[in-house]
Amino acid sequence: MSKCDIGLYGLAVMGQNFALNMAEHGFKVAVCNRSPAKVDTTVARAKAEGDLPLEGHKDMKDFVAALSKPRKVVILVMAGKPVDDTIALLSEHMEEGDVIIDGGNEWFPNSVRRATELEAKGLHFIGMGISGGEEGARKGPSLMPGGPRVAYDLIEPIIMKCAAQVDGEPCTGYCGPIGAGNYVKMVHNGIEYGDMQLIGECYDILKNVIGMSNQDMSKLFAEWNKTELDSYLIEITSIILAKKDDQGNPGEVVDYVLDKTGMKGTGRWTVQEAAEQSVAAPTIASALDARYISGRKEERIAASKILKGPLDDKANQQLNVDKAQVINDLKAALYCSKIASYAQGLSQIKAASDKNNWNVDLALCAQMWRGGCIIRAKLLKGIHDAVVDDPELKNLMVDPNFAAELNSRHLAWRRIVTLGIANGISVPSTSASLGYYDQYRRANLSANLIQAQRDFFGGHTYERTDKPGVFHTLWDDTHKDLGDLAGRTAGNI
Amino acid sequence: MSKCDIGLYGLAVMGQNFALNMAEHGFKVAVCNRSPAKVDTTVARAKAEGDLPLEGHKDMKDFVAALSKPRKVVILVMAGKPVDDTIALLSEHMEEGDVIIDGGNEWFPNSVRRATELEAKGLHFIGMGISGGEEGARKGPSLMPGGPRVAYDLIEPIIMKCAAQVDGEPCTGYCGPIGAGNYVKMVHNGIEYGDMQLIGECYDILKNVIGMSNQDMSKLFAEWNKTELDSYLIEITSIILAKKDDQGNPGEVVDYVLDKTGMKGTGRWTVQEAAEQSVAAPTIASALDARYISGRKEERIAASKILKGPLDDKANQQLNVDKAQVINDLKAALYCSKIASYAQGLSQIKAASDKNNWNVDLALCAQMWRGGCIIRAKLLKGIHDAVVDDPELKNLMVDPNFAAELNSRHLAWRRIVTLGIANGISVPSTSASLGYYDQYRRANLSANLIQAQRDFFGGHTYERTDKPGVFHTLWDDTHKDLGDLAGRTAGNI
Repeated sequence: MSKCDIGLYGLAVMGQNFALNMAEHGFKVAVCNRSPAKVDTTVARAKAEGDLPLEGHKDMKDFVAALSKPRKVVILVMAGKPVDDTIALLSEHMEEGDVIIDGGNEWFPNSVRRATELEAKGLHFIGMGISGGEEGARKGPSLMPGGPRVAYDLIEPIIMKCAAQVDGEPCTGYCGPIGAGNYVKMVHNGIEYGDMQLIGECYDILKNVIGMSNQDMSKLFAEWNKTELDSYLIEITSIILAKKDDQGNPGEVVDYVLDKTGMKGTGRWTVQEAAEQSVAAPTIASALDARYISGRKEERIAASKILKGPLDDKANQQLNVDKAQVINDLKAALYCSKIASYAQGLSQIKAASDKNNWNVDLALCAQMWRGGCIIRAKLLKGIHDAVVDDPELKNLMVDPNFAAELNSRHLAWRRIVTLGIANGISVPSTSASLGYYDQYRRANLSANLIQAQRDFFGGHTYERTDKPGVFHTLWDDTHKDLGDLAGRTAGNI
Repeated sequence: MSKCDIGLYGLAVMGQNFALNMAEHGFKVAVCNRSPAKVDTTVARAKAEGDLPLEGHKDMKDFVAALSKPRKVVILVMAGKPVDDTIALLSEHMEEGDVIIDGGNEWFPNSVRRATELEAKGLHFIGMGISGGEEGARKGPSLMPGGPRVAYDLIEPIIMKCAAQVDGEPCTGYCGPIGAGNYVKMVHNGIEYGDMQLIGECYDILKNVIGMSNQDMSKLFAEWNKTELDSYLIEITSIILAKKDDQGNPGEVVDYVLDKTGMKGTGRWTVQEAAEQSVAAPTIASALDARYISGRKEERIAASKILKGPLDDKANQQLNVDKAQVINDLKAALYCSKIASYAQGLSQIKAASDKNNWNVDLALCAQMWRGGCIIRAKLLKGIHDAVVDDPELKNLMVDPNFAAELNSRHLAWRRIVTLGIANGISVPSTSASLGYYDQYRRANLSANLIQAQRDFFGGHTYERTDKPGVFHTLWDDTHKDLGDLAGRTAGNI
């Protein structure tokens, strides 16, 4: 019996599907799992889904022995300790030059640690972010691998075929050294949080300011999906809004879904890491905050009886808006907000890449996200091209094409944010995106006052606009200057 | 010669001042420093500033030997490794039951680690946040200590006298176990970032929307300082705006200060920790982001020539605003934003306290911040009272008094944010604060759509409004449901 091209350990639905995906592309796949029943399921599915070249193993040693050398094993188990446990078991049976590929949503420093540990044994480790959910895993996901180039080269022929393909190009490629792939996937997820919140804000305005029905909204999102907003999340939003309730109630399911949002942590990491890299990511941060606030449902119900909005007073109600104008403005605002959000995400990857010497190709990021994954969107082609056109592009928003689109839409963007605020409909991520735009495009911000405050209370010094150097002002004779700038320490900011 | 009541190691200006503060309150203080020259400086200052009871030591062993048992030593050195080095040297000469108090801005897990290490030697460790800068250290700072109660009790008589006093109450108290004091100080600093940014946004509107001069703004802030906005930061802003240039230029210094804001990391920690605790802190996060964006001065100058604002087109200029109205609205907006910001900060402390079993008293936090520190403000009395009135208060904004103030001002708040946005003057923290208010006060948010999206692409399930339980919908027949909800793993969010 010939050896297998690749192994897959961890046969939850994602694992099963990715194994079948690889097998369907002609690679002979060995699979294994902690609980053996899933091995049988997977083998049965391989038979049922086209007699695919896949063999099941219930013993780790046999599983590893079934692989051709250098061995390549993808693991798809829960992030954290299960990954460490699996690596420990696997690596016992592996030899120098073999490769372990972790496909989980892992916190990138964990991948760096594991790579270092495995390197000591001569084994290669790749952290490969996978997006696309279960369907993507089966039909072609976005694959974001980071690890030693020599190890990447061994899996490249397989992942290039198994990844989603858009315009003939695979949605994968070499992200960089270990950690880089996890990082790119993390930011992908953060952007996803932002996209979902931005769509939620459109829904909120459509529903609560212009009173549009779910079915009409569904049609509108379907229309938008034929424009520059073409994307997976817009597509499924249209489907969701049209879905009739399946629990016996009139109307659509969405009206019965509780407005408490869950999360699994990658959005949180993105926000924490943006702060770590000194990069502003207000769209993603506000989307994360919106999830946190949504979780406090009982507090919100109580607060709704105490704190007032503009619509609580009939005299303030100004809902006679031009609906067609609002719809057009919303479309423009959503598009602009997305550009601002992707600009933040790419800036964050760039900052982390520079700091860690990863040399991540931002055009590749856009290419990897064009298909297979949750944030796939027509927009990403333009993003890809913008980075290719100017690899030194400082910010996506100043690319000539995107700048023109923003310049032609920014008044609509402003109208939507002010409409929401005037009506008490919070549009935090749309607002934060516009704030990012308005801060980034201003040569002079109010930070001069903040620097002066810092110099006043902490002697932190400041630079000047009229001459080079570092300055300190004795701001107030009544606040005695205690000198000794060099020795200032704890207690100041 | 009688032994000293307390020791202070680390004689940069903060350390010198805090030593002199303690000596002035009648405690006999021993001081020591790595470089001996500072010891002489401090001894000379003690003599000059009233022949205070302070003795200098240039040898660590002599320094420790000069202290009465159980010994208490405050260290004020740079956070990080210098603290570890100092603790290592000090603890060599200390005995069971002695106490080391670190007064630096330390990342709280570092204090927890140090406490554990010292506990093994029988030594107590206190992490005590100090705010007030150099002046506060000398005249009465805000002191936020966390550590073993038994150790706190030993220093309480000293810190109660040396801390700032407001209405006869000291701005200090027992924050909780090790880490709690650092945490409270960290959030204090985060709130400070927010306050500074909010004031900066007022300045921006006053300067760029209604064209007010620096001197007039100075007078306005002085007026505001006599109202509910009474606070240290408003006071110094008034002084700063009036300050004539000291480098030979016409006009005020503030116009020549470069708008690039520095930072030392505590704001970053606050934002990262808020995310860790699943608490929304948009006011602080947007203030941090504003600092990051301010740092990209060159990029902003370039972007200002590419990206348009509403004032770039004469036809859109609508600067004929009612100046008196804008000023009144700004005052209301600033006050509301501050309430929202402090609500976030207290929620964050509460969440961390609950998670770590610290039992932090939020009323004490407000009391500690009333004087001595950078965020000292009249508002804090009301915050203190709100928590005392209802120790189970879910959020500061729903306290009856604050709710009434917010309800009477929210329309002004909205007018300011929309004015800023319409004029292209970014007011990110004012806007984020209002967004926090508007999200928190709504019983129903758009999070139902987001949960539906999550269920669609990741099978994450959802709760319903009409019945208990956990639900999953097969949203679309063309997107095949792959079942096995329990086994879903990596790759999803």
